[in-house]
Amino acid sequence: MGAVTDDAERAARAQAEAMYAVDRASQALGITVSEVAVGRATATMRVRDDMVNGHDIAHGGYVFLLADTAFAFACNTHGPATVARSADITFLSPVTAGEALVAVAQERVLSGRNGIYDVTVRRACGEVVAEFRGSSRQLDRRPES
Amino acid sequence: MGAVTDDAERAARAQAEAMYAVDRASQALGITVSEVAVGRATATMRVRDDMVNGHDIAHGGYVFLLADTAFAFACNTHGPATVARSADITFLSPVTAGEALVAVAQERVLSGRNGIYDVTVRRACGEVVAEFRGSSRQLDRRPES
Amino acid sequence: MGAVTDDAERAARAQAEAMYAVDRASQALGITVSEVAVGRATATMRVRDDMVNGHDIAHGGYVFLLADTAFAFACNTHGPATVARSADITFLSPVTAGEALVAVAQERVLSGRNGIYDVTVRRACGEVVAEFRGSSRQLDRRPES
Amino acid sequence: MGAVTDDAERAARAQAEAMYAVDRASQALGITVSEVAVGRATATMRVRDDMVNGHDIAHGGYVFLLADTAFAFACNTHGPATVARSADITFLSPVTAGEALVAVAQERVLSGRNGIYDVTVRRACGEVVAEFRGSSRQLDRRPES
Repeated sequence: MGAVTDDAERAARAQAEAMYAVDRASQALGITVSEVAVGRATATMRVRDDMVNGHDIAHGGYVFLLADTAFAFACNTHGPATVARSADITFLSPVTAGEALVAVAQERVLSGRNGIYDVTVRRACGEVVAEFRGSSRQLDRRPES
Repeated sequence: MGAVTDDAERAARAQAEAMYAVDRASQALGITVSEVAVGRATATMRVRDDMVNGHDIAHGGYVFLLADTAFAFACNTHGPATVARSADITFLSPVTAGEALVAVAQERVLSGRNGIYDVTVRRACGEVVAEFRGSSRQLDRRPES
Repeated sequence: MGAVTDDAERAARAQAEAMYAVDRASQALGITVSEVAVGRATATMRVRDDMVNGHDIAHGGYVFLLADTAFAFACNTHGPATVARSADITFLSPVTAGEALVAVAQERVLSGRNGIYDVTVRRACGEVVAEFRGSSRQLDRRPES
Repeated sequence: MGAVTDDAERAARAQAEAMYAVDRASQALGITVSEVAVGRATATMRVRDDMVNGHDIAHGGYVFLLADTAFAFACNTHGPATVARSADITFLSPVTAGEALVAVAQERVLSGRNGIYDVTVRRACGEVVAEFRGSSRQLDRRPES
């Protein structure tokens, strides 16, 4: 990470802002994206009443979706348009309506055009509720502007 | 599967109906659940405009969420309350707003209280857009009624 | 699968034989490969005394290795040289020294150059000991002959 | 990690030594285990001529097996006997005969009896050849002594 310049960090944040501006899914869910740096991003979401199954337990799909959002923003900080190829998630603790979840994505490795990103999802107290890992692939073309 | 009785199949469908009735997440997303049998379930969803990123590509999280729903209904057809422990997904083709997706979950193996379920997500023409695999664990207690 | 011709099946088997002839790893472990067809292969291995940890439980790595072998042979039946990109395994039952394991690989989907293969590993009595899923990618070049 | 005492670290190393002494698989493959600490272990292996497929590329199963070994030692450093439940691996670069591989396992999270461990496999020059993630479960009983 030592070689990352201020320019690269500025470009990473600009890329994230451009992505968020057209990301209706994240906007509609009230997801916010912050702490963007090269290979990193944080996504935050409050679990709404309409995101739960019976008994007020959040649908695991929404926990995944939040982690996947952090992953998408993190893997697109390098410039080239980058897509998710696959991802896995382990659910460690149930989440209830009203909780605020924070997903922190961190690049583990970038090997050619293939990247691996780890995302940890925590509740407000810091307890881990899920661990996610995503594999990305940079497309040939530069991102559309 | 030959030993599965009509009673087991009836119980599987009743379990799914009870689950769906309190599943606000699936209801709010317009997901329908059908073709429930022991170890099987199908979930269908139309991709809404607020489920896409820029350029009208569905957020991968919603594709996962649909597959996860089919998985949840399939693994709960045995009676005991069953939860997702982990899941992985591979994205094979992008999905656009307006498309109807069909996720078919099929039990691969049930070993003691641990199950593995395969879910294939297809677009209307039958093309596979994602493959999902989920691991489940039956809880000790019987499902609440 | 109905469109698969006899020629394709013959080519699949010839490909597998050519692969096996230079596969020192499989030979050294006493793995045999059989029932090769387009998108399918079976690999068999007896668990040797030097494949176990303490207490005569097979090292999970060898169970993976057997499944990975079946996967490699199955995904190379289409002609183009094909490599494993990633794989996951769930261990369902411990295996002891002396047991014969059978891994059956079956293609789930082939989407462009990307494939997904399911491999079930069973002990002699038919009980499933592990479920494996592998992702493959066909290389541009034709296999070396 | 701040609360980890010297006693815990000493016990972790003693546990690893006891495991290794009866681990015929690791011994037979020439795997060495080092840098054991609570939640951590490193495993090293030289790729032998009988670990390769045609063209001197290491069988992916052996790369997995090395990572799985580091994982097994790391997740057993807490005391209770702990088993692998599932694992996944992404292959990033091919490995040739004669190369020495180093797999470093690090605990990501321990939630009740369930743990997640990340293992990075590198060649001598430091390049990452594979990323592995394993899920573990502590058994009820204490390890046999």
